[in-house]
Amino acid sequence: MSTVLQQATDARVASIDLAAATRAEKDRALLLMATRLEESTGDIVKANEIDVRNGRAASLSDAMIDRLTLTPARIKAMADGLRELAALPDPVGDVVRGSTLANGLELRQVRVPFGVVGIVYEGRPNVTADAAGICLKSGNAVLLRGSGSALSSNAAIVAVLREAVADTGLPADTIQLLDATTRDSVKELMRARGLVDVLIPRGGASLIKAVVEESTVPVIETGVGNCHVYVDEAADLEKALAVVLNSKTQRLSVCNTAESLLVHSEIADRFLPLVLAELGDAGVTVHGDARVSSYGDSVVPATEEDWATEYLSADISVGVVDSLDDALDHIRRYGTGHTEAIISESLAATRRFAARVDAAAVMINASTRFTDGSEFGFGAEIGISTQKLHARGPMGLPELTSTKYIVTGNGHTRG
Amino acid sequence: MSTVLQQATDARVASIDLAAATRAEKDRALLLMATRLEESTGDIVKANEIDVRNGRAASLSDAMIDRLTLTPARIKAMADGLRELAALPDPVGDVVRGSTLANGLELRQVRVPFGVVGIVYEGRPNVTADAAGICLKSGNAVLLRGSGSALSSNAAIVAVLREAVADTGLPADTIQLLDATTRDSVKELMRARGLVDVLIPRGGASLIKAVVEESTVPVIETGVGNCHVYVDEAADLEKALAVVLNSKTQRLSVCNTAESLLVHSEIADRFLPLVLAELGDAGVTVHGDARVSSYGDSVVPATEEDWATEYLSADISVGVVDSLDDALDHIRRYGTGHTEAIISESLAATRRFAARVDAAAVMINASTRFTDGSEFGFGAEIGISTQKLHARGPMGLPELTSTKYIVTGNGHTRG
Repeated sequence: MSTVLQQATDARVASIDLAAATRAEKDRALLLMATRLEESTGDIVKANEIDVRNGRAASLSDAMIDRLTLTPARIKAMADGLRELAALPDPVGDVVRGSTLANGLELRQVRVPFGVVGIVYEGRPNVTADAAGICLKSGNAVLLRGSGSALSSNAAIVAVLREAVADTGLPADTIQLLDATTRDSVKELMRARGLVDVLIPRGGASLIKAVVEESTVPVIETGVGNCHVYVDEAADLEKALAVVLNSKTQRLSVCNTAESLLVHSEIADRFLPLVLAELGDAGVTVHGDARVSSYGDSVVPATEEDWATEYLSADISVGVVDSLDDALDHIRRYGTGHTEAIISESLAATRRFAARVDAAAVMINASTRFTDGSEFGFGAEIGISTQKLHARGPMGLPELTSTKYIVTGNGHTRG
Repeated sequence: MSTVLQQATDARVASIDLAAATRAEKDRALLLMATRLEESTGDIVKANEIDVRNGRAASLSDAMIDRLTLTPARIKAMADGLRELAALPDPVGDVVRGSTLANGLELRQVRVPFGVVGIVYEGRPNVTADAAGICLKSGNAVLLRGSGSALSSNAAIVAVLREAVADTGLPADTIQLLDATTRDSVKELMRARGLVDVLIPRGGASLIKAVVEESTVPVIETGVGNCHVYVDEAADLEKALAVVLNSKTQRLSVCNTAESLLVHSEIADRFLPLVLAELGDAGVTVHGDARVSSYGDSVVPATEEDWATEYLSADISVGVVDSLDDALDHIRRYGTGHTEAIISESLAATRRFAARVDAAAVMINASTRFTDGSEFGFGAEIGISTQKLHARGPMGLPELTSTKYIVTGNGHTRG
């Protein structure tokens, strides 16, 4: 048996006891995990230095090195994240639906953990503690397949977390790290149907596409966001300016950042000069259609590819549309079903947009940046689902559970 | 473009208007579909006669021919099913969750249709009207890929339904039939990611396995049931007898029928002679382990394969276990996560079983046959999910929907 399959089997066994653990037992483990992370700051920083050194040798960009680097403050933030999880309610055991049937059978649908969750992620090592904590709180064993660049950091973090879990009496195999030195571990994880219940890829579009195509384990697709802001003819231009700027520039490299702006032709004359100036001042390059180009010298002509691109950089595609329905058509063609915003004071326009746009989140007179578990008040987030099955939008603890029907009778038989 | 991809594209376009249709519009379509089916009884029966004739020529069994045959009474039952759907509440637009965030943003999570649903099914042509109706009521366009044996019947039914839909002003392409003369249409459907939102295979284990392995469209797995009844040492033997007999014999060929019986060793002496006699009287062949064999001459020795088999016939595997945990281990090894039953008067035993068994439905002192949408009071059922993602157990109308967050602000930006 391959190492991954052995680890998945061990996770499956651990998941049986973990699924039956009480909230108190799980919270105790989360709090000890937090304490031990802080106590191990020196060891974790030392392990991280190896990754940082290797990263520099491999010529990672300064931004990448920054994301990779763990400081005592960042380790404290990881610990605090685990403590916040302990304070959140336990979704397991929630009664989703219940009734007594006509024949006296008592029907209850209750939340239960998935069992074993696989997470494939890139980049920052703090995701390791976050993901382990969210899975533990929701009663799931987790198989973590992190980035090869964070090998040594992740190993140090997981060793600390496993020991803490075991010391509170829960199975250490609740949290396991998969080999990140080879692509084979991802491949084996994707084929571990029956052992792994759900696979969540967190990362760039190519990782997510590969997992979706090859996995026989059910997948929750996350995160690719080609988000639009549509400024309607009935928009309040001040609100429109604020929302466009915030949606594009508040943080450039994340999935809920706006990548495209559509402006109704009726207000193009008034709005485009303003927004092009402000985007320019903010250092954003505008890739515009022919009509947009006529409003600014610095507009780069947009290609077909621009409309479909999630830039994750200081770029935005901008087009003029002749109606709300044209905007909807454009979004249907190029959107990725993440977040779409409309700026309008017209109730009819906002209702039509909200009803007809096919996305996880629709923002009405609000920044696309609000699509986020902590902004929505969920307290913890494992990712933002852009698929329609199971979970759509920010996924908190309940989204990491399934349900089970428990039906109680007194010798009932079907007639 | 292949025919299937063209049909999927047409379905996608139709789904936009259908998703925005009101309950009144959808119910009007369902009621006209029902009326037109009844009015077309003669044509449908004539089309069905072609399938029946071809079936006989292909030497289908009498049972298969019976399942294939449409009579005026069966067509009326299909029409009545559509009328019942019209009477059910519309899941679309239900507010699943809602709150006002600290910054004043109004958050609502509302149910929306998936968009386009693909259904691959075998056997009876009445599934065609059922599935079309359930999808329409839940606001989904549907691509139906029925059995090659029901080609002519399905074509006649779908022609009637499409005309009725169009006559009420909804898009006819809401309901489309895929080519059932070739396996290629199933393959194309499985790869139509982006056009088809969900694929539901309904049929035997081999169909479901093929779809799960090959589909890049998200799949809801249905229906394979190797269901167990565990008779605990604290069982009421009268209830146990009634439930075992009902679970096994009330209907042999369906997924919620019990295929395996586990008896606690402490009560084997008292219970096995009774249950073996009654199963024998009911014409059921018992495949037993060594301990079971000592209680009856007619017991066939159970092989390893027996424990894993969903017989769908007058056969049952029977084993003796020394504890509740041994029963749980056995079920974990051989169960398919459909329905598992315990017969016991012990609260501790039933709680432990319900908490630890990993299945869509757990029956406590009740027949496995109760895992069924209509028995659960859902009014309509598209299948029984045995996966953990999205839906688990009987799937009614809400299970055919996704959700969308609608967030309303007044120019809100993120700080």
